[in-house]
Amino acid sequence: MTEPKTPAGFVSLVSAGPGDPELLTLKAANRLAAADVVLFDDLASGPVLDQAGPQAELIAVGKRAGRPSARQDHVNQLLVQYAQAGHRVVRLKSGDAGIFGRLEEELLALTEAGIPFEIIPGVTSASAAAAAAGIPLTRRLTSRRVQFITGADVTGDLPADINWAAIADPAVTTVVFMGQRSFTRLAQGLREHGLPGDTPALFAEAVGHPQQRLLRTTVDGLARELQGIEVVNPGLIMFGPLAFRPGS
Amino acid sequence: MTEPKTPAGFVSLVSAGPGDPELLTLKAANRLAAADVVLFDDLASGPVLDQAGPQAELIAVGKRAGRPSARQDHVNQLLVQYAQAGHRVVRLKSGDAGIFGRLEEELLALTEAGIPFEIIPGVTSASAAAAAAGIPLTRRLTSRRVQFITGADVTGDLPADINWAAIADPAVTTVVFMGQRSFTRLAQGLREHGLPGDTPALFAEAVGHPQQRLLRTTVDGLARELQGIEVVNPGLIMFGPLAFRPGS
Repeated sequence: MTEPKTPAGFVSLVSAGPGDPELLTLKAANRLAAADVVLFDDLASGPVLDQAGPQAELIAVGKRAGRPSARQDHVNQLLVQYAQAGHRVVRLKSGDAGIFGRLEEELLALTEAGIPFEIIPGVTSASAAAAAAGIPLTRRLTSRRVQFITGADVTGDLPADINWAAIADPAVTTVVFMGQRSFTRLAQGLREHGLPGDTPALFAEAVGHPQQRLLRTTVDGLARELQGIEVVNPGLIMFGPLAFRPGS
Repeated sequence: MTEPKTPAGFVSLVSAGPGDPELLTLKAANRLAAADVVLFDDLASGPVLDQAGPQAELIAVGKRAGRPSARQDHVNQLLVQYAQAGHRVVRLKSGDAGIFGRLEEELLALTEAGIPFEIIPGVTSASAAAAAAGIPLTRRLTSRRVQFITGADVTGDLPADINWAAIADPAVTTVVFMGQRSFTRLAQGLREHGLPGDTPALFAEAVGHPQQRLLRTTVDGLARELQGIEVVNPGLIMFGPLAFRPGS
């Protein structure tokens, strides 16, 4: 920890968006440019970090490797320590920080330590995946509800408390975050609760990155595709009355 | 219509974000700066338009006043005509274009006319409202699902086909777009389907604008508040296990 630079530190909890540096908001780019310290996740690394100024200390706090719980405590501790030392701290979180981003734990740590903060919203990867596929997330007559769920709870498994009436509804677009490993089981539950297996499904891998890959298929087709695969790039799954473009 | 500037026109369907010009993405700001023509909604006007270059023709196509259906056809027609004349056209849509933005109608019109286009995702006002209130949209243990619904179907009324099992679930965060006028009736339905009236509710008016107002209340409290009010600024409603910050 270096010497304090200002009397009181400040933490900006910044949404990095899906990965394409052009999908940062102007506010996020400004905060990165002015930051003394940037704490970033694996998923919020790469070209997005080029927006940080030369003065900024860049610290990887990725959770992919290592023990998730200990890691979150450690991130909270770092945030508080750097801010208490008087730094302008940017906590860079992938996608929109408020959606499956473990934001609350960090907010609580900052509140408890009395450190002022702001939250900068960003582009969720759900919006970016739909845009990349050329489809909307809602449709005027057939999909007047859109929902985001997680395919992995704190244990890494499919959450046990899924509201199947909400998920197997043929008139909703569902986006599954962190859902690759458990999708075969999710699809099984969807079938058991009446959702047709030929419901359109989109798999969007590495959205906004050079290695982006889109797969337009069905719920059953995607369940077969993802069975037993090794997850290399994080992907987003979307299913429901999706408006695939003709011929795409 | 002026003379063609390039052999073939191009349409960028650009998400303007919630209204704060700093919440534009870098890509959106770049497209605005390079646009020949900008077609914008009422909700995507104001300081966001300052990002357009001096060469840009700015055309309001707001839907607030006037006949919604005729208007949408007219917007489609304008998009096609300006693109066919060879212009770089930006269609600026408030929030994220893919969420309750009537995006599909415009995509179809462009596809039918054979005009190339791109969709630029943006910050949905749901993310911006949560960030402004200092809360996440999902919570690790109590809210592993977040959903966006509309309080007004094509007729302007509460949609008739609401999935109450999905909406009255105490473990989901629900964001209601265009929901001010119908919330009293929505709240009545929520009570009838078992959601406690003291469930936290947030009303976020004019998010990202100077006149922003946040009201932290309950479902019952908000239903009383919104009964019979005249809607001046568009507002977003959020309810569920919301993490209101202590003392805020």
